[in-house]
Amino acid sequence: MLTKNQIKFIHSLNQKKSRSIHQMFVVEGVKVVQEFLNSNYELVDIFSTDTSYSKYSSNFTAVNLKELAKISSFSTPNKVLAIFKIPLPSLVNWSGLVLALDSINDPGNLGTIIRLCDWFGITDLVCSETTVDCYNSKVVQSSMGSHSRVNITYLDLEATLADSKLCYGTFMGGASIYEHELPKTGVIVMGNEANGISKEIESLITVRLSIPRFGSLKQTESLNVANAAAIILSEFKRNITEK
Amino acid sequence: MLTKNQIKFIHSLNQKKSRSIHQMFVVEGVKVVQEFLNSNYELVDIFSTDTSYSKYSSNFTAVNLKELAKISSFSTPNKVLAIFKIPLPSLVNWSGLVLALDSINDPGNLGTIIRLCDWFGITDLVCSETTVDCYNSKVVQSSMGSHSRVNITYLDLEATLADSKLCYGTFMGGASIYEHELPKTGVIVMGNEANGISKEIESLITVRLSIPRFGSLKQTESLNVANAAAIILSEFKRNITEK
Repeated sequence: MLTKNQIKFIHSLNQKKSRSIHQMFVVEGVKVVQEFLNSNYELVDIFSTDTSYSKYSSNFTAVNLKELAKISSFSTPNKVLAIFKIPLPSLVNWSGLVLALDSINDPGNLGTIIRLCDWFGITDLVCSETTVDCYNSKVVQSSMGSHSRVNITYLDLEATLADSKLCYGTFMGGASIYEHELPKTGVIVMGNEANGISKEIESLITVRLSIPRFGSLKQTESLNVANAAAIILSEFKRNITEK
Repeated sequence: MLTKNQIKFIHSLNQKKSRSIHQMFVVEGVKVVQEFLNSNYELVDIFSTDTSYSKYSSNFTAVNLKELAKISSFSTPNKVLAIFKIPLPSLVNWSGLVLALDSINDPGNLGTIIRLCDWFGITDLVCSETTVDCYNSKVVQSSMGSHSRVNITYLDLEATLADSKLCYGTFMGGASIYEHELPKTGVIVMGNEANGISKEIESLITVRLSIPRFGSLKQTESLNVANAAAIILSEFKRNITEK
């Protein structure tokens, strides 16, 4: 049985401010909830139409479909909704390959970029404070559970990159990613969907790269930022033999 | 001045059935409308708060912001909405590299895949009849105008691929795309978001490829289909020198 206060609290977690105050976030659906249950994330509350979820927490609430619909942000709720604690970020391991995001706005883009990091073994994703919150429910859902395997840290990107030696960014007219030698360590910066990498961050980029464009017309202005990240990460990783 | 019939007609074009009957579709926003105006697409009607668009057609209707909001599917309408004719598809050029989509459901995925085709000079995109309609407004918007430079054909994918010689698909356990020699011609098949390539199409695949996964955990189940297409197209194209 769901209380009015529970409904109100879960809805409040749609707001970044409330997530910050309570240090909690919402996860939905069988597959993604399971990924978080299997991870080190600390479960706070779990609500489901399936009572077998009661094994995960004494804070289990059995709900019917109508109640689940009241707390779900899905048009078709999928059995379970859970609240987890936002963990303290681990220290960033700068000795590996780190992906840095400069003001990514779209939750779906951030979610698929987290999924890409997981796929390509990028353990650290650093985000400018202007990047969309990674505990936004759309980000959590589109990362498909990869969230639990990538260390995501929000920081002052400009100050941080000023101390970094090798910093890669893509720009029109940069060196072809297919021809430039790419290292195993360094920071790869991806810019905002509409404006690319900001002027402040651009001045800190040591190697300017570009993804070559093909075809006779070459009128495409840009690639979707998550697709660009996919191509760049693949290119950085393809020559590493220890797969 | 907008008539009730115009509003009703524009709304009706949100439905595939109505688009099929009238062979028309809707494009919105300054940037994307301009891409279509610069293309061979035939303009039918144009509605804008900016009267300078009247130069493009005698079927220009000046609207105020309130009227534009009534016909727009955007939460913040962007100056212009246009109706274009759906063109007859050109013949597919099978002598090049063709991308084939097997039941892509998400309009955003189809839109970004069209943008990828444009970037990588893939002039022909063929879609199973179960793939989301490419004149769906979300597809048109997320393709960012690339739509006007890629020949998109809906066909019986199974019957078509049965005649095709070189047919590539990605599967867990396939040959690494980083190691397998990739040709300049052939058909690359991308499968459905949840289920991958269907059994019927799988039996027609001649070369089974895979995108290697990195990192120690390797728990990521899959990549977003548009990101997978980005990595594969980049890999097929990277060794072609005539850029």
